[in-house]
Amino acid sequence: MATVYTVIMAGGSGTRFWPLSRKLNPKQFLALAGDGTTPMITATARRVASLSPIERVLVVTRADLADATRAALPDLPAENLLLEPAGRNTAPCVAWATATVQRRDPQAVIVVLAADAFIADEPAFVRALETAVATATTGSIVTLGITPTRPETGYGYLHLGDALPGAPEGVRRVGAFVEKPDAPRAKEFLAGGLHLWNAGIFVFRADVMRAAVREHLGPIADAVDAFDRAALAGDEARAVASVYPQLPNVSVDYGVMEKVAEVAVVPADCGWSDVGSWQASWELGARDDAQNVVRAEAVLSDATGNVVLAPAGKVVALLGVHDLVVVDTPDALLVVPRERAQDVKKAVDALAARGRTDVL
Amino acid sequence: MATVYTVIMAGGSGTRFWPLSRKLNPKQFLALAGDGTTPMITATARRVASLSPIERVLVVTRADLADATRAALPDLPAENLLLEPAGRNTAPCVAWATATVQRRDPQAVIVVLAADAFIADEPAFVRALETAVATATTGSIVTLGITPTRPETGYGYLHLGDALPGAPEGVRRVGAFVEKPDAPRAKEFLAGGLHLWNAGIFVFRADVMRAAVREHLGPIADAVDAFDRAALAGDEARAVASVYPQLPNVSVDYGVMEKVAEVAVVPADCGWSDVGSWQASWELGARDDAQNVVRAEAVLSDATGNVVLAPAGKVVALLGVHDLVVVDTPDALLVVPRERAQDVKKAVDALAARGRTDVL
Repeated sequence: MATVYTVIMAGGSGTRFWPLSRKLNPKQFLALAGDGTTPMITATARRVASLSPIERVLVVTRADLADATRAALPDLPAENLLLEPAGRNTAPCVAWATATVQRRDPQAVIVVLAADAFIADEPAFVRALETAVATATTGSIVTLGITPTRPETGYGYLHLGDALPGAPEGVRRVGAFVEKPDAPRAKEFLAGGLHLWNAGIFVFRADVMRAAVREHLGPIADAVDAFDRAALAGDEARAVASVYPQLPNVSVDYGVMEKVAEVAVVPADCGWSDVGSWQASWELGARDDAQNVVRAEAVLSDATGNVVLAPAGKVVALLGVHDLVVVDTPDALLVVPRERAQDVKKAVDALAARGRTDVL
Repeated sequence: MATVYTVIMAGGSGTRFWPLSRKLNPKQFLALAGDGTTPMITATARRVASLSPIERVLVVTRADLADATRAALPDLPAENLLLEPAGRNTAPCVAWATATVQRRDPQAVIVVLAADAFIADEPAFVRALETAVATATTGSIVTLGITPTRPETGYGYLHLGDALPGAPEGVRRVGAFVEKPDAPRAKEFLAGGLHLWNAGIFVFRADVMRAAVREHLGPIADAVDAFDRAALAGDEARAVASVYPQLPNVSVDYGVMEKVAEVAVVPADCGWSDVGSWQASWELGARDDAQNVVRAEAVLSDATGNVVLAPAGKVVALLGVHDLVVVDTPDALLVVPRERAQDVKKAVDALAARGRTDVL
């Protein structure tokens, strides 16, 4: 099997899990799912360790998150931390990371994924990645397609095409990338069985992605070529600092995946979740008999279906309330019904408008 | 007019307004109603100032609340603060305070009331007290009867009897003291117009109460006689410390008022409230356009009818929640629907059972 590198994309604005998440403590550093104690980025790196030990994991993140990232991944080699001087969406990030890997191993296969997803069935996930790596080794660009479990309108979908000749069993061509559907279409997708969730997990050979970026995203390819030359001259940081912020703001989905002639998809039924809101933290959390997810010293009386988080030492009493999210921190408190968890952004926007960036 | 002293009874366990109220910071020290900044005990003393300037106000409270009481009433003369070595209900408290007043002014009229009620119409309240003082001057024991505004089942009632001959207009005899009624009876009381709330506001001449205690509560009368003698010998504190904790635990309502042959009642329509729960703090508080009572830096979006309190500097975001009580403090947080505010005691009991007296 090819040597596999994993590129973890770890940006994030820290709004959807406010007040626990902050600009300098976004979602990937929280322990929102799983055992409740492991930061999501740490769990992400561990999850791929059988394919990519930490020496072959690269993390691309904001410069102001460098310290938090090092703390969450203490074994990450210093040279594997790529700090973006400015967020420019995923295409520049993937292209830069690909070039960085390619200098170390021109034949490497790269897995790209986000730092802040949850996987319930890790063995199934790793098996899907292994299939994707085998497929990518022969030159395909591969995406994982997650078997949908609900008529989700918040994700893009992959329409399954033909079987891919010569690839492992089950691997198909992507027939089409489908935008986020409305609710009726999402129900059709779920019932039809021909649409999978696009989880943004891509697998490709470094040289293949490099060529695709050259073909479809010329300005980014030029910049990355320059980074390569600067790196060889020991001057990469300066080149990145001056050029990266000017790169086009484009996603790898739109800029590359949807443009290349053929993308392969490996279906994966692995309990993936993007952990998109406090509602997801309830769905994925350990619930007590009354269906509460409690990470606080709490007194609960006739209280069901709540998410309760508070700092150590703080006592929280919930009496007669149901299906609420109550998240307390030393300087900010949120109370919102679980089903309206996506409204958290309204609070963040209102606080930003008031200049209370100290609590954001 | 007689010289009027006011005895403010200021005990309280601090449970109904937990987590804002604590054992060492019970309700009378909170600013739950009115301007939102004046502690209730301070407002109580100010309310009677035209009858009893602070030099003629006595406060009876728990020894462990002495400092907090002095802070809330900085002008209270030191000798006007009566510290109970143990709470023994209101009869010992009233008897002791009466004796203390009587030594200063044998003909004084005394107003007894709680430290932690709210009065919306203070002029009407003062007029009622003036009528009560005039009635008490001639030897009657007088109680204020509050015109009910709802079929309250949480209060005792006074059944109006005949007009009291020789008393100011409107003053009646108490026909009967009526226990807390069930809901149907409370509705009858409200509709019938012959029942008033017993607010525990009593007015009497010192010598008259002293005689009534002697007649109906001999052991308490004996003890108070002993306190009197000790006080004249400069040794009252020791006498109180040794005897007071052994006094019978009995209320002045049950031990005196219901036993004496005739009690006069002065009807008062003055917006009295005992501020019995967080629900009352909502009813009495300043509400915004969305009917929220907010004493916090708050972000409210589609949030109506809530009570929100938090310490200075803390940001509270309430999104899509209605009719909740959200009270945050540095070490404890409460979330409860307003209509279940009385359940707060459950949380307090649960925390006591866990040994978390540090937050009680």
